[in-house]
Amino acid sequence: ACPGVGGFGGLFPFGDSYLVAGTDGVGTKLKLAFDMDKHDTIGQDLVAMSVNDIVTLGAAPMFFLDYFATSKLDVDQAEAVIVGIVRACEESGCALLGGETAEMPGFYSDGEYDLSGFAVGSVKKDKVVDGKRVLAGDVLVGLPSTGVHSNGFSLVRRILERSGMSLADPLPTDPSRSIGDALLAPTALYVKPVLSALDAFDVRALCHVTGGGFTENLPRVMPDGLGCSVTRGSWASLPVFEWIQQAGSVEEEEMLRTFNCGVGMVMVMPAADAQRCIEGPDAMPGATIIGSVVEGEGVVYV
Amino acid sequence: ACPGVGGFGGLFPFGDSYLVAGTDGVGTKLKLAFDMDKHDTIGQDLVAMSVNDIVTLGAAPMFFLDYFATSKLDVDQAEAVIVGIVRACEESGCALLGGETAEMPGFYSDGEYDLSGFAVGSVKKDKVVDGKRVLAGDVLVGLPSTGVHSNGFSLVRRILERSGMSLADPLPTDPSRSIGDALLAPTALYVKPVLSALDAFDVRALCHVTGGGFTENLPRVMPDGLGCSVTRGSWASLPVFEWIQQAGSVEEEEMLRTFNCGVGMVMVMPAADAQRCIEGPDAMPGATIIGSVVEGEGVVYV
Repeated sequence: ACPGVGGFGGLFPFGDSYLVAGTDGVGTKLKLAFDMDKHDTIGQDLVAMSVNDIVTLGAAPMFFLDYFATSKLDVDQAEAVIVGIVRACEESGCALLGGETAEMPGFYSDGEYDLSGFAVGSVKKDKVVDGKRVLAGDVLVGLPSTGVHSNGFSLVRRILERSGMSLADPLPTDPSRSIGDALLAPTALYVKPVLSALDAFDVRALCHVTGGGFTENLPRVMPDGLGCSVTRGSWASLPVFEWIQQAGSVEEEEMLRTFNCGVGMVMVMPAADAQRCIEGPDAMPGATIIGSVVEGEGVVYV
Repeated sequence: ACPGVGGFGGLFPFGDSYLVAGTDGVGTKLKLAFDMDKHDTIGQDLVAMSVNDIVTLGAAPMFFLDYFATSKLDVDQAEAVIVGIVRACEESGCALLGGETAEMPGFYSDGEYDLSGFAVGSVKKDKVVDGKRVLAGDVLVGLPSTGVHSNGFSLVRRILERSGMSLADPLPTDPSRSIGDALLAPTALYVKPVLSALDAFDVRALCHVTGGGFTENLPRVMPDGLGCSVTRGSWASLPVFEWIQQAGSVEEEEMLRTFNCGVGMVMVMPAADAQRCIEGPDAMPGATIIGSVVEGEGVVYV
């Protein structure tokens, strides 16, 4: 995520539009991809982290560029990564405009690499979503996450190590999949649902729930004097978070300030719009009311 | 450098303009910065590699974003890097719109880091510099480099090692500076001179001389059926390249297909414009005629 007027992306005025740019990597989730030798979904994580950021300003992503750095290029591995990037760009309606593959002997351990991504979108100036119109009483509508996404993996890896379990073991809270598969599940791409929500509803703020969870991310999109009330248990929990909390004896408060906990994108809109968003002909798949905007600041959990 | 219509940048149509995007890192030049524990100029290399690419399409850079990844953040070190980035963005007339600082335990050796950068510029569609108007007889005008810039450092480091010399030793071909200082000299920023040349002259193609030297880069901007004739010795050689060639017993041909050899940007223009570019009231500092466009393909050295 990068600093900017709207919190999640940088804004650059261009004619009657803003260009919106975001850059991010996928952090230590890469270590899981290395451990599992599975490289075809990490590209989706990379694209998602940047495009989910810029769509929070109401910007439709236009193009993406990637930087792939490794000590000695493994063509099959790099190709798997790029295939994931290409698919995620298509799914997000943006062009893969270019990229750089850097071979840097001595920088990375054997078989390892680092990734960074850059996305640019645009939004008409009068359509920018900046949170300024948010009012007390507006409702928080959550969109489901697919799992841990691409934040909090340093903690996840410590917990996994202490648990004595391996990535190949069944996830205790959902034995139909392995711990590794659950943790490596690619980050959800929110571009399409958010852009369609912007057409259908009066969306006043958008929050990409990254590292810091609700606790640190929701305040980034609230105007001065307003905070959020989040209702515990109002959304479907994910088995992977239940396992993380149990295995790591993680306090609920820490869960909520570290992980997305099952909701990866929050849309703030008037109550009537939120109602249409969760039921009826315009309902969005998986959308759930998780709380509301209140006087004050920060996030309270009720 | 990234693929695209014009060779050095990716083009995205936007109204009556193209947005032009480029991404690059600084490669193993970073190892020199680590060895010398000098981090305040590598940011200029990072910015230069991307903005010099996009200006070759005639695009004025608008904004830049950086990605800085390390295992454990050293605030002083990171600050020195960012200061270099900020200065180079100012010098290139572009905004530092955002960035990502990624702390990735276990990815990088102690005290080391990797950098990638991303620049976006714009150019009116009818002003894009794409080489299509280049004609046989047009002239190659070179702008001086400051040294090795940010390519070819794997070879440079091998030569240094074999030479038995250290970075602190005086450069044999110019004892007034150390080998380290000469090698770490920041990449020249060509945005201002190139944009002013676009105003003053009929610039038909622009070539950023990166890894691959004249030999591989000039053909990237030539239309089908045209090549370049480069006149040996027509530009001022740099002591650092003389030392590299001597110390490494590097053939001239390999020098010319690896390094910029003293000319970091080539502008292609009609002969009359080239003449005005090198002398008279419109002359550009350091500009030198280094060759011409000829029938054929590739680069011949005469």
